[in-house]
Amino acid sequence: MEYRPAESTDNAGYATLSWQGDHSGWLRLLDQTLLPTEYCEIDCRTVKEVWEAIRRLSVRGAPAIGVAAAYGVVIGLQSAADGSRAEFNLRLREVTDYLASSRPTAVNLFWALERMENVANQSADADASEMLARLLEEARRIESEDREMCAAIGRHGAELLGDNQGVLTHCNAGALATAGDGTALSVIFAAAAQGKQLQVYADETRPLLQGARLTSWELCQRDIPVTVICDSMAGWVMREKRIDAVITGADRIAANGDVANKIGTYSVALLAKAHGLPFYVAAPSSTFDLALATGDEIPIEQRDASEITQLGAQQTTPEHVDVYNPAFDVTPAEYVTAIITERGVIQPVTTENVHNHLGTEAISS
Amino acid sequence: MEYRPAESTDNAGYATLSWQGDHSGWLRLLDQTLLPTEYCEIDCRTVKEVWEAIRRLSVRGAPAIGVAAAYGVVIGLQSAADGSRAEFNLRLREVTDYLASSRPTAVNLFWALERMENVANQSADADASEMLARLLEEARRIESEDREMCAAIGRHGAELLGDNQGVLTHCNAGALATAGDGTALSVIFAAAAQGKQLQVYADETRPLLQGARLTSWELCQRDIPVTVICDSMAGWVMREKRIDAVITGADRIAANGDVANKIGTYSVALLAKAHGLPFYVAAPSSTFDLALATGDEIPIEQRDASEITQLGAQQTTPEHVDVYNPAFDVTPAEYVTAIITERGVIQPVTTENVHNHLGTEAISS
Repeated sequence: MEYRPAESTDNAGYATLSWQGDHSGWLRLLDQTLLPTEYCEIDCRTVKEVWEAIRRLSVRGAPAIGVAAAYGVVIGLQSAADGSRAEFNLRLREVTDYLASSRPTAVNLFWALERMENVANQSADADASEMLARLLEEARRIESEDREMCAAIGRHGAELLGDNQGVLTHCNAGALATAGDGTALSVIFAAAAQGKQLQVYADETRPLLQGARLTSWELCQRDIPVTVICDSMAGWVMREKRIDAVITGADRIAANGDVANKIGTYSVALLAKAHGLPFYVAAPSSTFDLALATGDEIPIEQRDASEITQLGAQQTTPEHVDVYNPAFDVTPAEYVTAIITERGVIQPVTTENVHNHLGTEAISS
Repeated sequence: MEYRPAESTDNAGYATLSWQGDHSGWLRLLDQTLLPTEYCEIDCRTVKEVWEAIRRLSVRGAPAIGVAAAYGVVIGLQSAADGSRAEFNLRLREVTDYLASSRPTAVNLFWALERMENVANQSADADASEMLARLLEEARRIESEDREMCAAIGRHGAELLGDNQGVLTHCNAGALATAGDGTALSVIFAAAAQGKQLQVYADETRPLLQGARLTSWELCQRDIPVTVICDSMAGWVMREKRIDAVITGADRIAANGDVANKIGTYSVALLAKAHGLPFYVAAPSSTFDLALATGDEIPIEQRDASEITQLGAQQTTPEHVDVYNPAFDVTPAEYVTAIITERGVIQPVTTENVHNHLGTEAISS
């Protein structure tokens, strides 16, 4: 893995990820752990480098993790392109199992890996070399669908925001979390593009400060007014009537509409309800995990204590103190005003409306 | 101001503040900005050093600020002890005005300064030298009353906690915030001394991490189980049924029971209510400001953006991003289950009960 300064970026001024070259190419990632003070890209040329980049959050955000993992499959299979198809299939299983172990909560990861496996299952006739080309095609398709998904979420969601509104968001669900313009932030970008004046409040989002570091950075890049607050201030800015709506992304959504998202989302949703404010979730339909009836079944990733006890070189707690560090929480559907997907808006959020929204095809997938 | 390693500490293993010597002595403070990684004491020998120690939070917590300010008055008057009484009075006014400007929200600061001024008003006959001695007596009295107050709050509050309970606290309202054993933590210490097994959850309390740095340190010193969480996790640990009660301190309480306390307290109180959990406030009766009918009139200190944009040497946001950094918020009385003072427990929290609890004397003060 090599660090290199950025050369080319997309229209927004930054590229979260991009595939370089043909089927023997590699994945280039913006290293989000260094933002906002350094803009560095990483070239991942082995599946282990992709796994580690996902694990340590150099690439993060459920949709972006899905796209990165799909390209990771291609990288992992490059060494098997000259062998037999049987060997290729064995290696594919190894690679997808390995990548699936990088982060347990984001369902888009498993969804993307399943799509890659399905390509192999549906191409029994192709040889290993042809299979590699088809896997790259599928990964590119996942990426381009993700871009379109972001744009569609932005279109649908922008209708829910009014002019001169204060909008609170938690964590980062922006272009840095997807291959496109983001989910929650895509809604904000689309509303701003319609000429609506918004004042965004970004929760800093401890422990890893994705709101302070990433969301505020993205909004600054696009000249949308943003104010960073500590997570503990969310209730108070609502009380002060600075907020008209709350919007976040999601990492996994159960069949009844319960939403797993960055730790702290649950509190923000409760606070929004207590202040009579709408709480919106923006996520692609691939975020739904219909195998789970409710959010109680969603596994919650526990992360290392050092994320809380250390900040950079600084020790912030006594040594050896106990720490609890769940990366996600689950917001019950009753606190979610609406879920915005690339297909439209689910409101109210009920099991029936979720199933109607996704259609039979999605339910059986 | 000189830094020196700690020599003597009280029974709990640490001394928040102590007066050294006679009326020509000085104030020794534990520098709380360096905890938990360094235990250093500061000797303040000028009123400016006391002001700065309060301002930069080397000493913090409403009761401790009051005691430190009282000793600061003594230090500020040492140079006037050889002059006329008229000059002494002028200097007293200067010194109290100056110290009052250090932090705007903690009412104990103004209460302590008023007590020091009252000593002068009631001693028209004394010469300057005698006045200095009387001021030192009053400061020592404020300190010893504070210790007794902490013990009494602990006794009254411990009755509200049961065995095998999970208790959430926010910020630091411990021995480090008072001359004695604390307010909210005094309740926990007293309950633990009764043999109750408690599991304390300490909100880390951004931006200055008093929970992570100070509360967890105090509990570790006293062998009480403590788990540090990010502020954003408070709602989720309630949802997971890890919490049976919430207890915090207060910086100022209005006549109707509205409570100003560390930013984030309001959110925690709302979340407690949503989960059917009691939310207790522990504070000396000197925290009440009966001149204020409701919390709407409490001035909220705004602190520097760098507390959020920097953590130690690390930049956590893009440069020049807007930040909102209120140091306190106000929790309406309706969310406060009970207020524990050295006189007993106010429950339910109503204007009438506050006035009955404090008595006519307090109301007219």
